[in-house]
Amino acid sequence: MTHKVLVLAGDGIGPEIVAEARKVLEALRRGFGLAVELEEGLVGGAAIDATGTPLPEATLRLAREADAVLLGAVGGPKWDDLPSERRPEKGLLGLRGGLGLFANLRPAVLYPELAAASTLRAEVVAGLDMLIVRELTGGIYFGEPRGIRTRPDGVREGVNTMVYSEPEIERIARVAFEAARRRGRRVCSVDKANVLEVSALWREVVTRVAADYPDVELAHMYVDNAAMQLVRAPRQFDVMVTGNLFGDILSDCAAMLTGSIGMLPSASLDAAGKGMYEPIHGSAPDIAGRGVANPLATILSVAMMLRHSLGEGELAGRVEAAVREVLAAGLRTPDIDGGEGTRRVGTKEMGDAVAAAL
Amino acid sequence: MTHKVLVLAGDGIGPEIVAEARKVLEALRRGFGLAVELEEGLVGGAAIDATGTPLPEATLRLAREADAVLLGAVGGPKWDDLPSERRPEKGLLGLRGGLGLFANLRPAVLYPELAAASTLRAEVVAGLDMLIVRELTGGIYFGEPRGIRTRPDGVREGVNTMVYSEPEIERIARVAFEAARRRGRRVCSVDKANVLEVSALWREVVTRVAADYPDVELAHMYVDNAAMQLVRAPRQFDVMVTGNLFGDILSDCAAMLTGSIGMLPSASLDAAGKGMYEPIHGSAPDIAGRGVANPLATILSVAMMLRHSLGEGELAGRVEAAVREVLAAGLRTPDIDGGEGTRRVGTKEMGDAVAAAL
Ligand SMILES: CC(C)[C@H](C(=O)O)[C@@H](O)C(=O)O
Ligand SMILES: CC(C)[C@H](C(=O)O)[C@@H](O)C(=O)O
Repeated sequence: MTHKVLVLAGDGIGPEIVAEARKVLEALRRGFGLAVELEEGLVGGAAIDATGTPLPEATLRLAREADAVLLGAVGGPKWDDLPSERRPEKGLLGLRGGLGLFANLRPAVLYPELAAASTLRAEVVAGLDMLIVRELTGGIYFGEPRGIRTRPDGVREGVNTMVYSEPEIERIARVAFEAARRRGRRVCSVDKANVLEVSALWREVVTRVAADYPDVELAHMYVDNAAMQLVRAPRQFDVMVTGNLFGDILSDCAAMLTGSIGMLPSASLDAAGKGMYEPIHGSAPDIAGRGVANPLATILSVAMMLRHSLGEGELAGRVEAAVREVLAAGLRTPDIDGGEGTRRVGTKEMGDAVAAAL
Repeated sequence: MTHKVLVLAGDGIGPEIVAEARKVLEALRRGFGLAVELEEGLVGGAAIDATGTPLPEATLRLAREADAVLLGAVGGPKWDDLPSERRPEKGLLGLRGGLGLFANLRPAVLYPELAAASTLRAEVVAGLDMLIVRELTGGIYFGEPRGIRTRPDGVREGVNTMVYSEPEIERIARVAFEAARRRGRRVCSVDKANVLEVSALWREVVTRVAADYPDVELAHMYVDNAAMQLVRAPRQFDVMVTGNLFGDILSDCAAMLTGSIGMLPSASLDAAGKGMYEPIHGSAPDIAGRGVANPLATILSVAMMLRHSLGEGELAGRVEAAVREVLAAGLRTPDIDGGEGTRRVGTKEMGDAVAAAL
């Protein structure tokens, strides 16, 4: 059976890094008989420029038909002044919502070769390996009512709604507990239950689900404390599960701790394991087109795709090993510049090296 | 004219640290003729235990009559299972809302003597001195509708509302720009305008207010990026202004960067400059009653109170100098343990030393 993968290059450095990920898929096809068929589609600013909308119908249809989606990045200053309904980000949110990709897995891993790139002291982050499970199709990102309205007294106000239902909380909690079983068997659920009712329900439901996983340890933490603990002692975490907005903030913070933000992939999964895969870094318009972007996060997103959506865990392992090999050989894009014993390379050379290592 | 100060010790280490702050006020009265009259009141868990409610009417009345409020901390495991309406935190939120304390000033300062306590590399945080201006009486903390409800289809859901009106945004923006004028003349406004309409309005209004402060530089940043930038390069910030929830998360993160969380005071001000002053650390139930809590954040909160609400800027400077003096002399509570050349002291000894230095 041939796997169908939709490739959405997007904006900024998106096309450059996705091109290297394609090389890796090509190498797997030639070298290991991976049966994969690639389609292409438009999303984000690229789609706005070509069709006037950040998520053309055709893209959503192709995404529905595919087994997995590989995304570069969306957004850039060119589209920053558009009203929010027509911005590149809406393309991303439309894909998440439209495909029901409620479970966002964001590993935050410190690569020992890149330890020097972290702004944290080595002894605080050495060996960091945590997984943030972020709810991705609910919460304040999608809640209604929303908008800017004029009150009866003539004053304008902006409104968004943070809402979670029991089934939404339950299914993301299960994803976190299942993931913890394959890792360190500890889940930390993050909320703001001392202030928000939506968080009180979150805490209640996660606690109830935990009863089905007696072999996994559950802790609860307020989001402000979680932000502190990530800086104070990040290695205390195994799996962290939280809502859409808190996950957005905390996963970026956790990623930055590792100093390896150009290295970190992510997966966004639906109930059946179909997924969208993308680097956690953004479209980096400032370096777009210069051939210096780090393609490794996108290549590692391919590895996550192989494992989670294509049932090719063995090939996923090979991709990850190939990445480790090129790092060990000293190759570094400018973002992970490593000093002595390393060699600075561009986007293409890095992608070629990984493909060659396969 | 005698200043009236309401002292609310609260829970956990609250009574211990507040006792040391009182010593400092006493020293100022005796040594410098500070005309101050202290009242006491109940709030938080202590109030729940004594009266059944976290914010007794009498406390709110006393707070309204006072020129300033000095608060220890509220909350603890003892009251964690109460429904949210009756938890200690409601006492704090009731004071903020009831007194109209919309402007929360949270300095994040690295004390050179404590640089070793930061988990960040010295070169990243050395000299860090930023101010977070957090909106404190609006946003999702106070927005309606809120609660846990059962939908027509029988599914339970939790709901909170993030809402900001133009005047609310405008007044907190002005506080930030005014503060920036007394500092580095740079304001970074943090929002999530690429997803939330309430943030789009926030950005629009802050941008408009900026026109009145041509001498202050304004930048905008998304909250996820702000969490990253705090870890990556915190010294890029001078004044950061943001909403209630984002401010809760980011200010705790910023405080932790300094490694001096036991040292950081905060002020919550109304439109007339009346304020409530409290350490940013919590009630620390784990060390309560053991005489080891660091009273310096509370003592520095007294300094902020002298400056912002009592018009005693000169005495504020004296308190801050006294704190620097005891640090320079090597005194350290366990949380800021400093190795060589320092001496470990308890809560009382630290408070006595500051009072003596005055
Ligand atoms: C681009 C933006 C809409 C998005 C989000 O907030 O979810 C991004 O920050 C992310 O985390 O994937
Ligand atoms: C105790 C809690 C309600 C409070 C808040 O969330 O505002 C605290 O975290 C703070 O930052 O002062």
